[in-house]
Amino acid sequence: MRAVVYHGPGRISWDTVTDPAIEDPADAVVRVGTTTVCGTDLQILRGDLPEVKAGTVLGHEAVGEVVEVGPDVHHLRPGNQVIVSSVSACGHCRPCHDRLFGQCRGGGGWLLGNLIDGTQAEFVRVPFADHSTHRWPPTLPPDEAVLLSEVLPTAYEVGVRNGEVGPGDTVVVVGADPVGLATVAIARLYSPRRIIAVDLSDARLETALRMGADAADMPGRMIADLYDGPGADVVVEASGEPEGFVLCTRVVRTGGHIAVIGTPGRPVTLHLESLWRKNVTISTGQVDTSSTPWLLELLRFGRLPVSPLVTHTFALDRVLDAYEVFSHGAASGALKIALRRA
Amino acid sequence: MRAVVYHGPGRISWDTVTDPAIEDPADAVVRVGTTTVCGTDLQILRGDLPEVKAGTVLGHEAVGEVVEVGPDVHHLRPGNQVIVSSVSACGHCRPCHDRLFGQCRGGGGWLLGNLIDGTQAEFVRVPFADHSTHRWPPTLPPDEAVLLSEVLPTAYEVGVRNGEVGPGDTVVVVGADPVGLATVAIARLYSPRRIIAVDLSDARLETALRMGADAADMPGRMIADLYDGPGADVVVEASGEPEGFVLCTRVVRTGGHIAVIGTPGRPVTLHLESLWRKNVTISTGQVDTSSTPWLLELLRFGRLPVSPLVTHTFALDRVLDAYEVFSHGAASGALKIALRRA
Amino acid sequence: MRAVVYHGPGRISWDTVTDPAIEDPADAVVRVGTTTVCGTDLQILRGDLPEVKAGTVLGHEAVGEVVEVGPDVHHLRPGNQVIVSSVSACGHCRPCHDRLFGQCRGGGGWLLGNLIDGTQAEFVRVPFADHSTHRWPPTLPPDEAVLLSEVLPTAYEVGVRNGEVGPGDTVVVVGADPVGLATVAIARLYSPRRIIAVDLSDARLETALRMGADAADMPGRMIADLYDGPGADVVVEASGEPEGFVLCTRVVRTGGHIAVIGTPGRPVTLHLESLWRKNVTISTGQVDTSSTPWLLELLRFGRLPVSPLVTHTFALDRVLDAYEVFSHGAASGALKIALRRA
Amino acid sequence: MRAVVYHGPGRISWDTVTDPAIEDPADAVVRVGTTTVCGTDLQILRGDLPEVKAGTVLGHEAVGEVVEVGPDVHHLRPGNQVIVSSVSACGHCRPCHDRLFGQCRGGGGWLLGNLIDGTQAEFVRVPFADHSTHRWPPTLPPDEAVLLSEVLPTAYEVGVRNGEVGPGDTVVVVGADPVGLATVAIARLYSPRRIIAVDLSDARLETALRMGADAADMPGRMIADLYDGPGADVVVEASGEPEGFVLCTRVVRTGGHIAVIGTPGRPVTLHLESLWRKNVTISTGQVDTSSTPWLLELLRFGRLPVSPLVTHTFALDRVLDAYEVFSHGAASGALKIALRRA
Repeated sequence: MRAVVYHGPGRISWDTVTDPAIEDPADAVVRVGTTTVCGTDLQILRGDLPEVKAGTVLGHEAVGEVVEVGPDVHHLRPGNQVIVSSVSACGHCRPCHDRLFGQCRGGGGWLLGNLIDGTQAEFVRVPFADHSTHRWPPTLPPDEAVLLSEVLPTAYEVGVRNGEVGPGDTVVVVGADPVGLATVAIARLYSPRRIIAVDLSDARLETALRMGADAADMPGRMIADLYDGPGADVVVEASGEPEGFVLCTRVVRTGGHIAVIGTPGRPVTLHLESLWRKNVTISTGQVDTSSTPWLLELLRFGRLPVSPLVTHTFALDRVLDAYEVFSHGAASGALKIALRRA
Repeated sequence: MRAVVYHGPGRISWDTVTDPAIEDPADAVVRVGTTTVCGTDLQILRGDLPEVKAGTVLGHEAVGEVVEVGPDVHHLRPGNQVIVSSVSACGHCRPCHDRLFGQCRGGGGWLLGNLIDGTQAEFVRVPFADHSTHRWPPTLPPDEAVLLSEVLPTAYEVGVRNGEVGPGDTVVVVGADPVGLATVAIARLYSPRRIIAVDLSDARLETALRMGADAADMPGRMIADLYDGPGADVVVEASGEPEGFVLCTRVVRTGGHIAVIGTPGRPVTLHLESLWRKNVTISTGQVDTSSTPWLLELLRFGRLPVSPLVTHTFALDRVLDAYEVFSHGAASGALKIALRRA
Repeated sequence: MRAVVYHGPGRISWDTVTDPAIEDPADAVVRVGTTTVCGTDLQILRGDLPEVKAGTVLGHEAVGEVVEVGPDVHHLRPGNQVIVSSVSACGHCRPCHDRLFGQCRGGGGWLLGNLIDGTQAEFVRVPFADHSTHRWPPTLPPDEAVLLSEVLPTAYEVGVRNGEVGPGDTVVVVGADPVGLATVAIARLYSPRRIIAVDLSDARLETALRMGADAADMPGRMIADLYDGPGADVVVEASGEPEGFVLCTRVVRTGGHIAVIGTPGRPVTLHLESLWRKNVTISTGQVDTSSTPWLLELLRFGRLPVSPLVTHTFALDRVLDAYEVFSHGAASGALKIALRRA
Repeated sequence: MRAVVYHGPGRISWDTVTDPAIEDPADAVVRVGTTTVCGTDLQILRGDLPEVKAGTVLGHEAVGEVVEVGPDVHHLRPGNQVIVSSVSACGHCRPCHDRLFGQCRGGGGWLLGNLIDGTQAEFVRVPFADHSTHRWPPTLPPDEAVLLSEVLPTAYEVGVRNGEVGPGDTVVVVGADPVGLATVAIARLYSPRRIIAVDLSDARLETALRMGADAADMPGRMIADLYDGPGADVVVEASGEPEGFVLCTRVVRTGGHIAVIGTPGRPVTLHLESLWRKNVTISTGQVDTSSTPWLLELLRFGRLPVSPLVTHTFALDRVLDAYEVFSHGAASGALKIALRRA
């Protein structure tokens, strides 16, 4: 089959590789229908994630059709349409029992496109398939369904839920990348008083408004009133930049929450010398995808408008073009790029 | 009357000053029975809190007898024995309505020995007296009652409650000063699996064991297993040292809580580049003293053994000696020093 | 002045009575601008609340202007426009400290139109005025503001909050009286999957749809699928009828919540023999009005559409006509009736 | 093998039956080491649970050794010592994903000694063995380990956790049967101010005191002060008697919790006409055994003294004598009876 193979920092190619096969009795093989390029893929490409070995097929988001299952897979059969979760879960260890699948100690966690071959390919082997996929209802468009692999559960679990967004709150989202934008859309469900999106890109700020933000601007401009006023009840850090984190700690109100989604590559400064008086809570988190069934229902019942998130569509075999467009997001306006199998 | 007056960095003296009087209709004047010296007083003495003006009487912990009340004080009368809270609360603003008295916007907050004259004196004026004092039951010894001014509510609210200590937890307390030690005693009420105290002083570590810690040692020694093992469910930072904070972030388990009590004078480093995967929560907080009535009941019913906390007693007029002993805590073994009026 | 006076079961009249005056230093006297008739007034009129003595002025909801304050009132002055809370709060007792004003042990609780003269009058004496009123912003119409006296805080605190309504939930509201309808509107803020209103009146069911219900019908008809299906996540009992309560216990899902707002005059049957397996939670509650400031903000920012609730307006001196119309709600379609001073 | 077989109301015998065998790939067969007789077994014997068919082997609590596993069992192998949970869990359905194993929709729930053959036998077939057993550490005595099958998780999940027991609380436990007594022991971990046990048997009341109750008496006697005083923060109904439930609703304080463990065979009366003002929460619940791993750790670390619960020990083949003794608990003082295989 053909797949995007990582050959070390700065080098990927669309190669012919061996088809995946069942290796463990709990595996399934899925024929990829739609996959995407994620910001994390760019981090891998820059060499920022040394755990990813040369030769790995990239990608961790996909929907598609099951074509083969191992003997221990009981809840799937060939022909089933599934959403592949970015997190694989053994389902039996203590963290899995606590639904903290991202912390799986039984061999799961973030495997696809990281420790094993991923989804930017014609087929993908999914470990622990019973616990690592969700049925894809036929009424849900693939461009929405694929957001359930990672984008939506991350925005909800790590952003909205950790941040404890509630009715009447002032919510600031720092960083309007796809996960930040999804945070805006999900936060909207909780009837906050206002949601303010902050980003350096005008195009992204416009999309934030379409996704439900009440205001959207560059840092320092319109949120100046937050510095002087009571501050925000909830601040979601989705930029992954140390400066973004410091901004969050400045605009949060006394007693407020900072929910960190972004994954900076280096330490940040925490101004405890002033924050100790502010009774704030800071949460960090890796997605568990435990909320996927619930988000799936919200999508099905039309409660979550996410269509602005997929800005580009490519045929799967043009995935290298997609990387090109995606890595110049400022110019191209690319958010999520859907890659569809012909 | 006589009182400890701050005359600028490094300079305090036991002076004769004007007796306090009712200035506002909600004030009370309290004859100090027992007061203490707190670590914060040493910070003031070093000049670390520039908001404290020369001429201020220090001290923010006291029990004593009401001698005069203003016309708007309805729940106290002369002769009442009271615990003076370190936090004054107007009782009417939004934070006070939410019981966040430390954040009072109606003129309260931490006033005593900070913005107005404090308790290391023969008499003290207590603003918003109805909301800023608690009845002192006659069966409660003054050395225990005075801990309700600040030490116990801080340990509970900012340490144990923010840290969400529960049965079966492994709890690490970094810094065995009085508040850290009180955190050990209160955490004990929640039946954790084990409490580990960390400090640089052998004497304090021994006291930690007497207060209910299961283990107590220098950093890096016995908690080495926490680094390699699953880590602690709850880590309470009570040292106020940036190194203490980094230690906390290293020993916390995935999904655990870091409750920051200590108040460092400078920024700390937050290793988000590794913590983002650990789903931790970090809380900061200033005491509200909203839990004082409940802690008072625990003391009254003998559920909270705090007697090891008061290590020294001086007559009030020997308060400068008390400062001397207290500032050499490593040598003297001083934790809390009770100052009793003759 | 003129006022609605209760003369024993079945008898009220619009009488000339002595003007209220300051009796306690914490009192205020308010010139009533708008008041209402509440279902509880009809219960009093039927003689169901024997604590209400003949000679009492009825009514516990009002907005108006402060005309006089006692010497201990610090946050109000003559000329202030205020919302009078149906619950008076001393502000100093333990329940008041816990913001459980409805349980005030310092002389407060539900006093107006119950234990003391109420609001269906030209003037009303408001005890503990600092703690028992809220500033009425000039931009908020009186017909909306008066709902903050009781209807909205009851719907939120006792219905939505106790029931723990959340995104994606199926919510059933049994009883579409004003409080039930307000529950629909507030529940809507939490993005439930669907809200189903149940009532015996077609007119009220129609209003429920206008207030945000997704479906509305008579009991037993359309909710039949709830019996056979998984059931409702949250069921709010607002009918006050024992049959309504039993209905709630039948449609709640395993693990769901039943929030009881209605106040039946007699015991109800609890089918523990089947409910023990269903892991349900049943909550009861009297309003505390602690959420009023927050609900006031939601109204101000246009997040809460409540205009269908006030169906009729009368001049205050036609209050007996209002009682007549209100007591025949089925025929008149009356929900809340606003009584305006000329 | 030999086993206790139910032959219809009032009739059980110690029969020779066919040995259990693997029927489903997820099954295991366990050689019973220790089992018990439970109050529910007596209810079955009285014919109160018509779902139990004649011919069923009774018993749902056991520890023992795995002797055979089906091909889909991955976490057990012959020779493993295990605790058999009273609740079987498929591990894959929505309730199982939410750790509500008692509500399993994939074929699990309470099966053993109810819908399929149980544990009062030499061998027992355990469905969904990976999800329905826990490793039995060798240091834990069998008489303690067998309490993890049902008694301890029920007491914790349905009593202590649902009742939200906390430090300083007054806790009343109505009904001092084994689950009620276990509730006393587990509640003790949360440092309540006092625990009051209520029962009709002097022997059980004495055991309650040994298990950690501060007071223990007949209903109506010593708890009279609760009626007149503020009432109990938490009341646990463990008697299963309608009168017990009414007692609970009378002694609970305003704002308190009633946690129902008992399983009455008929409806109870709920005095909503007075309770609506009390802001109480009533919870019902079937055990999920989701807390078993945590309780196992508490037992291992000596935090939970449960030895008074097992009052009698019989050889397994004398199980009919055990039923006799157990059914005359008032005379024999029997609580839990351990049945040991020779």
